[in-house]
Amino acid sequence: MPVNLQAPDPGSLYPVDGLRLGAVSAGIRKPGHKDLLLVSLPEQANTAAVFTRNRFCAAPVEVARRHLAAGPVRALLVNTGCANAGTGEAGIAAAIKTCETVASLLGCKPQQVLPFSTGVIMEPLPVDRIVNGLPGCIASLSESNWLAAAQAIMTTDTLPKAASRRVEIGGTPITVTGMAKGSGMIRPDMATMLAFVATDAAVSPALLQQMAAYAAERSFNCVTVDGDMSTNDSFVLVATGRSAAPTVSGSDSHEFKVLLGAVTSVCVALAQSLVRDGEGATKFITVVVEGGLTETECRKVGYSIAHSPLVKTAFFASDPNLGRILAAIGYAGIEDLDVRKVDLYLDDVLVAQHGGRAPSYREEDGQRVMQQAEIGVRVVLNRGASVATVWTCDLSHDYVSINADYRS
Amino acid sequence: MPVNLQAPDPGSLYPVDGLRLGAVSAGIRKPGHKDLLLVSLPEQANTAAVFTRNRFCAAPVEVARRHLAAGPVRALLVNTGCANAGTGEAGIAAAIKTCETVASLLGCKPQQVLPFSTGVIMEPLPVDRIVNGLPGCIASLSESNWLAAAQAIMTTDTLPKAASRRVEIGGTPITVTGMAKGSGMIRPDMATMLAFVATDAAVSPALLQQMAAYAAERSFNCVTVDGDMSTNDSFVLVATGRSAAPTVSGSDSHEFKVLLGAVTSVCVALAQSLVRDGEGATKFITVVVEGGLTETECRKVGYSIAHSPLVKTAFFASDPNLGRILAAIGYAGIEDLDVRKVDLYLDDVLVAQHGGRAPSYREEDGQRVMQQAEIGVRVVLNRGASVATVWTCDLSHDYVSINADYRS
Repeated sequence: MPVNLQAPDPGSLYPVDGLRLGAVSAGIRKPGHKDLLLVSLPEQANTAAVFTRNRFCAAPVEVARRHLAAGPVRALLVNTGCANAGTGEAGIAAAIKTCETVASLLGCKPQQVLPFSTGVIMEPLPVDRIVNGLPGCIASLSESNWLAAAQAIMTTDTLPKAASRRVEIGGTPITVTGMAKGSGMIRPDMATMLAFVATDAAVSPALLQQMAAYAAERSFNCVTVDGDMSTNDSFVLVATGRSAAPTVSGSDSHEFKVLLGAVTSVCVALAQSLVRDGEGATKFITVVVEGGLTETECRKVGYSIAHSPLVKTAFFASDPNLGRILAAIGYAGIEDLDVRKVDLYLDDVLVAQHGGRAPSYREEDGQRVMQQAEIGVRVVLNRGASVATVWTCDLSHDYVSINADYRS
Repeated sequence: MPVNLQAPDPGSLYPVDGLRLGAVSAGIRKPGHKDLLLVSLPEQANTAAVFTRNRFCAAPVEVARRHLAAGPVRALLVNTGCANAGTGEAGIAAAIKTCETVASLLGCKPQQVLPFSTGVIMEPLPVDRIVNGLPGCIASLSESNWLAAAQAIMTTDTLPKAASRRVEIGGTPITVTGMAKGSGMIRPDMATMLAFVATDAAVSPALLQQMAAYAAERSFNCVTVDGDMSTNDSFVLVATGRSAAPTVSGSDSHEFKVLLGAVTSVCVALAQSLVRDGEGATKFITVVVEGGLTETECRKVGYSIAHSPLVKTAFFASDPNLGRILAAIGYAGIEDLDVRKVDLYLDDVLVAQHGGRAPSYREEDGQRVMQQAEIGVRVVLNRGASVATVWTCDLSHDYVSINADYRS
């Protein structure tokens, strides 16, 4: 059961001028499930992306990186059911073959197609099924297909994930719409499993890349379900440039900041939805770490708490066994941490003060907060002015069931 | 259900001359359970220890460190049911108070007593119950109480853990006997939850410390259950010096190596028993990483595999979803890893070769190995000559149940 998450209302997802999406069931994953998505971009579109830092990155990630560097992108191809990772040179060849087919159907170069895959690792990509599914994708291409597209990229996700914002640039309305998939193997270090965000604004490739990196850092790089970094994490940001608004130029400009705000807001909504739909999740937990010397050390503490199986099972049980959080702070890797300065809050309840149980803390107050579906953990390190936020979920029986049964 | 682990036969645990153990039920944990242990050491004994690196180390760890530095140790005091961690200055005072009581009863100085606690974090130590239980501990002190002592230090452990070896030094038999507790919050970075090993050999404090560090590095520092490093990890090595064998001197001497071998062997047996009795464990997994540039990077890869919830749930399901192991290798943090050189074996089955699925690999071979209770994972990095071993268990429904219910 996802935590306070619903399938997006199709009417809430604004089309992005020039960007068309088409999805079919190609028989890669399960019969009857859409599992192949083609996104076609207009000629003037610019594209930026950030990819997984996993050294065992998937073949499509390698190919997408190469193709992106080669010039303008005209299409994104996404399949679920098979990650095409741990597949060696044969996997690379398979990914390129699918790009070639898309290129011949759309009349562009293979290098203008970025491939993406998600699913089981170390199994060969079913190239024939993808090739056979492509004409159906092209036939269904439409600007209003965002929800169907979000559905087509799901694997263990229980709900499609998409979000949309509108802002104004120079008096002209600008749209930012995006979708993402993922609910396990979620601990992105560059981006999440797969996320695609697009705007009709006109943005140069360099500025767009800057925007993608910033938004990923504040959204996908702040979530974790199980600490397992995927081989296929990719986040793509497209600017179709179809809007009549002036071209966004200069990272100090007002327009840049407005658009960056909208892009980041869509990415945060998508990133949070990954956690809300985290495998087996029953709680949505926001960990804020304040008063650190650097953002990096705050993030270390946040992830240490968010990854602790003991903390996560305590949340699942609604058990205020909060010493487990102190233990996780203690092993986060800050060598010179003075624990006598550390305070811990659960929502507004002061649990620990100066490194020990707060005199005012009553078990029933902790219990009350732990029973909520949305819980805030706030750690105050009292050694600096930096802050970081990490979003995570609890660890439940269902997480074990889902991942013990995933392939069967 | 522990994996291939049984309670030790009392007859297999050789007493260590001069070291006496007494345990009672002091009502700290659950009625009827022994939960308080006193170990008395003879005057000439030398003691060494390694402690948790968790910055939120427990009050008894701080006090034990201080007392150990002050001079020879005469007693170890261990309680379960309460970790006395995250308890601030009051926790320190409580730990010292229990040492004072032991000292007055045994006729030594409070600084000659090392306190140890394990159990729930952030709850006050029940000093009165400990003080009231001490006379009973003293009345039951006996050299043949190792098994009762191992039982008294259990928390979520389902079985007591102890091991014993005999070697000869200069023709004289030498005994090494030890016990340990722990099955969750197990990812020691210096030692495990609590482990006490003693020998009747005579060893200088400096050599003994060297021996403790070496043995911990090769045993307790090679295991993980859930990656949660405890606030209370402590490993104590005592040499009573009561044996007639010549004093062990010089770390190059034959005697040193013989004794070190026996101590390490006891520690490895204890460390493995922690994993075999890991919370909810159904599989015992040995991860060997070979061909690394350094032992550190091999260990990183080993722990990355051993900590991955996705790998652990696949083991629980006996599902050869082995791409998850490749993903964990990929995010282990070796920035310049060439995955095209990586081979992966499951016992004797070659699963992945040159970073991709091995042509000879058949799913049924992987399946056969995954169904075993004891599984070997072998990763060959093919970039150097270093090796590291990590022992771990799977992640099951019972792990979640045990930790969701621990306090209730």
